[in-house]
Amino acid sequence: MPFRWDYRQHVSLAWFVLKWLVICLPVGIVVGSAVALFLWSLNVVTLTQWDNPWLLYLLPLAGIASGLMYHYLGREAEGGNNLIMEQIHEPGGGVPLRMAPLVLIGTLITHLFGGSAGREGTAVQMGGSLAGGIGRLLKLTPDEMRILLSAGVAAGFGAVFGTPLTGAIFAVEVIAIGRMSYKAIIPCLMASVIGDQVNTAWGIGHTHYHIAFSTEITSSLSAVSLDWGLTGKVAIAAIFFGLASVLFAELTHGISWTAKRFIPVPWMRPAIGGCVVIALVWLVGTRDYLGLGVSSHPPDANRICIESCFHVGGAHWLSWWWKLLFTAVTVGSGFKGGEVTPLFFVGAALGSVLGVALGAPVDLMAGLGFVAVFAGATNTPLACTIMAIELFGPGHGELLSSGFVVYAAVACFLSYFLSGNSSIYHAQKRDEEEPQREVEQLPETD
Amino acid sequence: MPFRWDYRQHVSLAWFVLKWLVICLPVGIVVGSAVALFLWSLNVVTLTQWDNPWLLYLLPLAGIASGLMYHYLGREAEGGNNLIMEQIHEPGGGVPLRMAPLVLIGTLITHLFGGSAGREGTAVQMGGSLAGGIGRLLKLTPDEMRILLSAGVAAGFGAVFGTPLTGAIFAVEVIAIGRMSYKAIIPCLMASVIGDQVNTAWGIGHTHYHIAFSTEITSSLSAVSLDWGLTGKVAIAAIFFGLASVLFAELTHGISWTAKRFIPVPWMRPAIGGCVVIALVWLVGTRDYLGLGVSSHPPDANRICIESCFHVGGAHWLSWWWKLLFTAVTVGSGFKGGEVTPLFFVGAALGSVLGVALGAPVDLMAGLGFVAVFAGATNTPLACTIMAIELFGPGHGELLSSGFVVYAAVACFLSYFLSGNSSIYHAQKRDEEEPQREVEQLPETD
Repeated sequence: MPFRWDYRQHVSLAWFVLKWLVICLPVGIVVGSAVALFLWSLNVVTLTQWDNPWLLYLLPLAGIASGLMYHYLGREAEGGNNLIMEQIHEPGGGVPLRMAPLVLIGTLITHLFGGSAGREGTAVQMGGSLAGGIGRLLKLTPDEMRILLSAGVAAGFGAVFGTPLTGAIFAVEVIAIGRMSYKAIIPCLMASVIGDQVNTAWGIGHTHYHIAFSTEITSSLSAVSLDWGLTGKVAIAAIFFGLASVLFAELTHGISWTAKRFIPVPWMRPAIGGCVVIALVWLVGTRDYLGLGVSSHPPDANRICIESCFHVGGAHWLSWWWKLLFTAVTVGSGFKGGEVTPLFFVGAALGSVLGVALGAPVDLMAGLGFVAVFAGATNTPLACTIMAIELFGPGHGELLSSGFVVYAAVACFLSYFLSGNSSIYHAQKRDEEEPQREVEQLPETD
Repeated sequence: MPFRWDYRQHVSLAWFVLKWLVICLPVGIVVGSAVALFLWSLNVVTLTQWDNPWLLYLLPLAGIASGLMYHYLGREAEGGNNLIMEQIHEPGGGVPLRMAPLVLIGTLITHLFGGSAGREGTAVQMGGSLAGGIGRLLKLTPDEMRILLSAGVAAGFGAVFGTPLTGAIFAVEVIAIGRMSYKAIIPCLMASVIGDQVNTAWGIGHTHYHIAFSTEITSSLSAVSLDWGLTGKVAIAAIFFGLASVLFAELTHGISWTAKRFIPVPWMRPAIGGCVVIALVWLVGTRDYLGLGVSSHPPDANRICIESCFHVGGAHWLSWWWKLLFTAVTVGSGFKGGEVTPLFFVGAALGSVLGVALGAPVDLMAGLGFVAVFAGATNTPLACTIMAIELFGPGHGELLSSGFVVYAAVACFLSYFLSGNSSIYHAQKRDEEEPQREVEQLPETD
């Protein structure tokens, strides 16, 4: 046949797009609104915790409350992000609607009483759970349900960080390690853009990060001026970003495993975790590693937070480790919340000190660590590269002229690759095809 | 095991990175230099053709010369881009080294005598062929050879357009439709960055495109201001971008099929194609659709080229169609060169008039068409979205603040999706898992 063109294919594809636009509209609106409610209340509880530092001493009791709530009401919702991924791989029992309010309340408890956790897990779980509810209402088929759950994840992630394309890519990339399918990408993109816009329409903003680093374009040949020495420094830093991500993932799993092994009563685990967090505050002598850690209150040049890491001297040599430990204890012992914002903190703090050590721009390295530790811990290097562009690019074209896209890709992909298959999500599928990862099959040493 | 960490995995992964850095260094240097030579000589022949318009009348003879050259010297090199993809899927006879000089000379012949073609095919084939030669020299295994060929493609693509991350993503994305494996991404990224830098080091520049479109950020909530009406217009335009890409791919295949069916002597096909191109110049009454079409010489407001499409009135209603037809005849009849730069032209011209028709910013729509028709014709929406950022972003941070990343993703992914499985590369693998594309299995109507 010389000329193949079947108009029915385009009609069928257009129908697919329209159908999913109709389905993703309520998903985006509901999830975007839920995320807005979450971010607003998260802000309220964070301010409350700052104004009432004594709340920290109730963290063990809060852990018991959170644990009991999940124990009596949680059922499958306990599975969290992993349950959603499993249901995307193989639709089964579905994602229960109760997951949304439970994870919302659980996360607010964590932050009100000073636990160190994030927010992406909460947004992703609310997204998946609400999308699942809408899917059951619409009586979708199992195949459609898989796509819808991905769209819910995309909407939650895109809205919570204000990065719509990152949300869509994250949702399709996080499912498996080392490969990506485009099956759900169009619904994910629609849900994520709508979710982000709805969240903004509710008047909820996002932190604006600024990397002042730029190099002068000395040649008219290229619109981008890449520095070889700096590229090498970024690659060296990426090794540390990758190792930090493994340390975080494995320490969190290890604490969780140990807690389950030695503390038989589930709701006692976060109680003991809460005690350890209090002990850590005494030990380290600062409350900087509690909560989200995006900013400090009141803004104080001597306090360490994500924003401070973008300045020279804004992080101590071990700030990254302390935030990592605080978070691994909080999340590993069973408190609710996400891991991603703490991973941003760990990465930004590590990047900040690596910038000083390597003689590289501190703000650039903090921004790269921000996304690269996250890339290593979740195996989503592409979403993280795009997040670097969506978070740091707007309004800063000179950053892109200075090779930022390449630096971000090098940091994220090397960190992802060198961190191996470690992941904070155990339901991520491995790509059996990847030959260079065969060391995995070596006999276990213990 | 509570805490899994096998240092040997990281050593093995680091070894993989180092090994490929050592292999990709010569690949990037050789391919980047070859692309520099190609772009330099392409510029010389384009200027020569502009200064000597009568050369067009020799196009049929040039077609015979090019056809005879491939007939007697070409052998497997005739396979072009498809041969490289086949060898990446399943290493067999390899990519012959002769492909590099043949495609270089063939492309220069096309452009010297006024054929309408591009340059990415040439860069990709030089990249694959030179990488293949280096691989045989190093006695790589078949599995390593597949990775190396991808790295060669990445280096060629990244260098020829000055977009290193796009080159790397393109090389892993173009292999299959609807999914992407990360197996070769690290070597591709290294080869592409090195190739681009080496090309620039040779003093070869790239065209800087500029989209002046920007919206004012009225809210402090979001760093990005997205316009819903404009998003809808971009989605509507994406339908046309997708259909134009199908028309291009199928028309080129159709002309190629018809030529092979009715013209038994292979080297006569480009001769007749050359006559048709001359007839088209008479018919349309302009030489604007010959050659690459990036710029006009001397710069003339009344002439149509890619650069003119970024201004109101810079393209006629049917400019996109004429460029499409000129290129389909040139490439379909057997002239050498790529299809991507003409696809940029087709997309920018279509975007330009769609911008006028839909009441949307003409430069924005031209830029989106530029990448989106390419995305549809090659099934590489992610590479094209990143290309939009790498080409139009540097120095223009206000563009990213105005929602450009989302507009680019919507245009590229919708164009890719709605264009179905049509592709200018028949060796692209289909993803059998994609459910929504089942209309493909409907009985044929003819």
